Amino acid sequence: MRIHRHGDAALDWRMYHGAGRVQVERYFGQTTRLQANVMLYHLEPGAEEGMHHHLADDPTSCSVDSADEMYVVTRGEVVVIGPDERIVLRAGDAAYAPHGVPHGVANESDEAAELVLIFGPPRA
Amino acid sequence: MRIHRHGDAALDWRMYHGAGRVQVERYFGQTTRLQANVMLYHLEPGAEEGMHHHLADDPTSCSVDSADEMYVVTRGEVVVIGPDERIVLRAGDAAYAPHGVPHGVANESDEAAELVLIFGPPRA
Repeated sequence: MRIHRHGDAALDWRMYHGAGRVQVERYFGQTTRLQANVMLYHLEPGAEEGMHHHLADDPTSCSVDSADEMYVVTRGEVVVIGPDERIVLRAGDAAYAPHGVPHGVANESDEAAELVLIFGPPRA
Repeated sequence: MRIHRHGDAALDWRMYHGAGRVQVERYFGQTTRLQANVMLYHLEPGAEEGMHHHLADDPTSCSVDSADEMYVVTRGEVVVIGPDERIVLRAGDAAYAPHGVPHGVANESDEAAELVLIFGPPRA
């Protein structure tokens, strides 16, 4: 069994076009053999990721590869933002953005919020 | 964007050989195209998953397919148990069990604990 301690791969990141900084932790980055990447986001009040999408061969994509992305809220409350929607999610709720669909997440509440993100290439 | 609300796919499960019940939520079960499955575990004090492993063509495996499995602790404190180890993890810590390696998780604390599990076939 391999162990990752909180802080082993931490990054304080100004993301995409978002306001504030998002604390990011990426788990087992080079050693995972899962076909999806796993990160923890910590958003203080006012922090936001910024709108972005993941689509191969699209110059406006924020990643070279296409990726589907799942957000699982584990603490507090966030707003997930899609092309024509703003949806409030609370702990235990989740959102799924297929590749190519613009999306982002923001903490518009008065408390810290956390999410686990799982993203990777969609199955054919 | 697709949304999953807490409770949409909830299960109150006596797992493997573990004590007590684990509340399980599986996200986007039939609709995800990620190549990994994502679940939330809620463990009250005393709850445990029980030891198990995921290895194809092994009659003692708890799943037909091989799977690697990642546990990300999002609340409280748990003990992850491996073949010859017992490791305390707290919020933000994570464990990784490659396919075939026996493992389990237990809440031996006095407070509720939660984890996000990500599991699926390892890349070749």
